[in-house]
Amino acid sequence: MNRFEEKTLAGETIYEGKIITLRVEEVALPDGKTAKRELIKHPGAVSIIPITKEGKLVLVEQYRKALERSLIEIPAGKIDPGEAPEVTAVRELEEETGYGAKEFTYVQSFATSPGFADEVIHLYVAQDLYKVENPADGDEDEFIGLLEVTIEEAEDMVASGKIFDAKTAFAVLYAKNLLNK
Amino acid sequence: MNRFEEKTLAGETIYEGKIITLRVEEVALPDGKTAKRELIKHPGAVSIIPITKEGKLVLVEQYRKALERSLIEIPAGKIDPGEAPEVTAVRELEEETGYGAKEFTYVQSFATSPGFADEVIHLYVAQDLYKVENPADGDEDEFIGLLEVTIEEAEDMVASGKIFDAKTAFAVLYAKNLLNK
Repeated sequence: MNRFEEKTLAGETIYEGKIITLRVEEVALPDGKTAKRELIKHPGAVSIIPITKEGKLVLVEQYRKALERSLIEIPAGKIDPGEAPEVTAVRELEEETGYGAKEFTYVQSFATSPGFADEVIHLYVAQDLYKVENPADGDEDEFIGLLEVTIEEAEDMVASGKIFDAKTAFAVLYAKNLLNK
Repeated sequence: MNRFEEKTLAGETIYEGKIITLRVEEVALPDGKTAKRELIKHPGAVSIIPITKEGKLVLVEQYRKALERSLIEIPAGKIDPGEAPEVTAVRELEEETGYGAKEFTYVQSFATSPGFADEVIHLYVAQDLYKVENPADGDEDEFIGLLEVTIEEAEDMVASGKIFDAKTAFAVLYAKNLLNK
C-alpha cells in the first residue's frame, strides 16, 4: 500500500515527551518536488465497546485537556510498552469501568488522525460483562465518571453532540448493528 | 461540560508549525495534585460522505506520511483560516473528487484524538452528485487517487483492514444506515 509514497529526505525530532513525539520531515513528492510534514508519533491505544447483559453501552466521562472540556467516550487507553493490545483492552476495561467480560472480540483497528499522527486504535467489543471484585486502579492522573445508556439514548447523545468523539460515534453505530442482528 | 476540570498552572509552546502547534502544560487535577499534558493544537477539518446517484461511496487514496502508508478515506481537508466549515466541505469535495453535490447535509462533529489533540472534524453527507466542469485544483503537495465502491464493498474493505481510518469506518456504517432507511 505505497501509492504516492513520500520518501524522507531529512528529518528532525523536535520533542520527545511522555506520550507523544513530534518530528518534522522533508519529503520527496511523487512529482519530484519537496514538502514539509509535521508528524506526531504515538504508542497506539485500544478502545472497548462494553455492552451489558441488558444491552446497555458502558461509557466513561473524563476531562480532555486538549479540548478543554469533558467528553463521554467508550473506555480506551494507551498500550504500555511491550503489551499486547488484547491485554491492554482487558486491563483498561477493568480499570475504567470495574467490569470484566466473558466474551471479548476483536473488531478492527484504525488510524484516528492520519493527516498528522500515527495513532492507531485497536477496537474490541466486550459482552457478557460481570463486576470485578476489587478492580485494579487506573492511572493516578485520570478521573473518570461512569454511565450506562441504551443504544437509543447513545444515538440521541451522538445526534445532540453530547457524544463528541469519533471512536464512540462509530461504537454506537457498531453496537446498534450488532444488537439488531 | 467541565466535570473533572484541569486548570492550567503553567504552559509552554514547544513548536508552532504550518499545521500543528505543540504545547506542554502543567495542570491541577481534581484532587489537587498536578500532571503534565502534551497537547496538539490543530485548525480543525471537514470530511464528506459522498454518495453517488447509484448509491456508491466516493473514496480517495492518498499517502499518509505519519503512518508511512497510503490510506483509503472519505474526502477531507483542513479548514482555512476564517473559512466556514460548510464552505470547506464544498471546496474539498470538488478539489479531491471533481464532484459537486445538489444535496449537502451536516451530519455531526467529533474529536478525532481527544487524548492529545484538539482536532475536530465536521462531517457532511453529499448526495445527488454531479461532475464539476474544470474543478478547482487541490493542494500542490497532495496526490490523490479516486475510487467508487458499493456500501457492501466498503464494508468488506473495513472488515479486511483495507479501510484503516476511523472517520471512514464511521462513514461506511452511516451510509449503510442512511440508504437502508
